[in-house]
Amino acid sequence: MSAPTAELYENLRLELRRGALTLAVLTQLRAEQYGYTLRKALCDAGLEIDESTLYPLLRRLETQGLLVSEWREENKRSKRFYRLAPEGEALLQQLLMEWQVINTAITRMAKE
Amino acid sequence: MSAPTAELYENLRLELRRGALTLAVLTQLRAEQYGYTLRKALCDAGLEIDESTLYPLLRRLETQGLLVSEWREENKRSKRFYRLAPEGEALLQQLLMEWQVINTAITRMAKE
Repeated sequence: MSAPTAELYENLRLELRRGALTLAVLTQLRAEQYGYTLRKALCDAGLEIDESTLYPLLRRLETQGLLVSEWREENKRSKRFYRLAPEGEALLQQLLMEWQVINTAITRMAKE
Repeated sequence: MSAPTAELYENLRLELRRGALTLAVLTQLRAEQYGYTLRKALCDAGLEIDESTLYPLLRRLETQGLLVSEWREENKRSKRFYRLAPEGEALLQQLLMEWQVINTAITRMAKE
């Protein structure tokens, strides 16, 4: 790819990932997690995310009422634990159905 | 869902679709199409898109060198036909691989 195409690719790649990352975070927070383990789970699944992207996203989702968090001590260190709020669970189910629609469309179109 | 959650859902849904729509448009333009048939193909696949979203997207992709277009007469009407440029084909292949990575991650996480 030429340099301009490589830059375009990176932009489109980020655009593809943006919405999916929110969805991935919501799926992971059906079980309580703190930032480090959440980030590791996303990375392990192939969705690397910077701390500078993850923490603002978590704050936004909490402000929107989709997550709840609490500070707790674990292994003598104070950590902030996150999990889905009931509104977040309802929304996650909707978004997973929407993901299915989108993925079915992309998969079908890619094969045509 | 409460009214604020419904609005949030709509925003997240649009965020999920944004990148996917660009990808869907690129897949469709491996074969030449004009706006109306392209829009119909996307709608039929479950990806409704307004004309006010589709045409600016096509212009942007053409400016970026991913598409080429030409005006031609068909059935006595002048229509603008679009198809992938070589740069667009290369980029489409990359984005489809990226889509696979993201979908695999979401699917795995959703099932955990």
